[in-house]
Amino acid sequence: MPIQLIGFLGGYTHEVSITLEELGLPYDFSETTFKVLGTPEFLASNHPFARVPVLIDDGFKVYETEAITRYLVKKYQGKKNSTVLIPTDEKKAALVDQFISVGNSYYIPILSKLVDEELVVELKGLTKNPEIIKEALGEIDNTLTVYEKLLEGKEYLAGEFSLADILHVPFTQLAIMCGHDFWNDPKRPNVARWWKNISERPCCKKIGAEIGIPKV
Amino acid sequence: MPIQLIGFLGGYTHEVSITLEELGLPYDFSETTFKVLGTPEFLASNHPFARVPVLIDDGFKVYETEAITRYLVKKYQGKKNSTVLIPTDEKKAALVDQFISVGNSYYIPILSKLVDEELVVELKGLTKNPEIIKEALGEIDNTLTVYEKLLEGKEYLAGEFSLADILHVPFTQLAIMCGHDFWNDPKRPNVARWWKNISERPCCKKIGAEIGIPKV
Repeated sequence: MPIQLIGFLGGYTHEVSITLEELGLPYDFSETTFKVLGTPEFLASNHPFARVPVLIDDGFKVYETEAITRYLVKKYQGKKNSTVLIPTDEKKAALVDQFISVGNSYYIPILSKLVDEELVVELKGLTKNPEIIKEALGEIDNTLTVYEKLLEGKEYLAGEFSLADILHVPFTQLAIMCGHDFWNDPKRPNVARWWKNISERPCCKKIGAEIGIPKV
Repeated sequence: MPIQLIGFLGGYTHEVSITLEELGLPYDFSETTFKVLGTPEFLASNHPFARVPVLIDDGFKVYETEAITRYLVKKYQGKKNSTVLIPTDEKKAALVDQFISVGNSYYIPILSKLVDEELVVELKGLTKNPEIIKEALGEIDNTLTVYEKLLEGKEYLAGEFSLADILHVPFTQLAIMCGHDFWNDPKRPNVARWWKNISERPCCKKIGAEIGIPKV
């Protein structure tokens, strides 16, 4: 039985989809909805905090994006192709882990704030708050100014392509889908080069074409 | 030269201190202050987002708590003692990673909200907002109700003691220091047993005795 992935089109689930594609692993995707996440069945059998994605591999179930991607790397990296998402060298791995944490702490929360306000609020029948959008755009600008320095002389965050870069894809794709183009701005050539490098990878192109927004 | 740890007494830095102690590693600790974090020197040489902790091991510098602790585990686990913080088995490791992510996503942010309002706001000369404290206390109560189920029949989150448990210590210690005692409540015997198991470990006791609050 192939690996099963339960989640939304877009957002964190896409981080797992790209990881699966990059490692050359076939999988079945089951799309769920916001409404289902809160049901007693989902909470009891899939995620106690009502989130996606959830992965099932040969009867073994694991939730939380970072745990899922690390599990896939540990179990399958090097098995189907030569793509390395977390290097075995301790110091190289530490840099990947560092940029995973940087992405989780200072990049995704502010992009998520923007995307929630631009897309999800409307889906839920509420009204967009332009103040929140303005605040998020300012924060993204500040964060990308730091990223511009971090990416000086580098093709990817940790030097080589890694799980840290994949982590940044889903919410960047959603922000671009909302019409924001911080990632193609001549004032930040390093960020623009980095995003071009990532987004031109076949797996990201494929997943980008499948992007959607969560269903309520 | 021993490992160098730069940070605050309490909070994320303590997660690294406990990891170092549990792995049996000697280290030098340099206490810093909020004011220093924002200086151009600190931003350029230690952490581009003005955070602690930062670790230097034989000239190799890494920042972000999770990256530091994973690096220490990869490099030193099993070298000085038999403590296992991330198991080598893929599935067991996935459960540790799952509970690391659960802690980072649903536990630390709300404890951090409480502790910031109870301790840090006052340090900065501002006034506590009782509404924020009330909201945080309600959220902690809800989260611990889920943890009570997650800890059913278990001594530690992933079964055996792991990095996932360590992650929960610093902010729990700070919340207890603020006078909140969710972790010794007969209505949640599993949470109480779990916290007793962790807090009675010699390394946690030692670090708990050294706890302090960040300096402005």
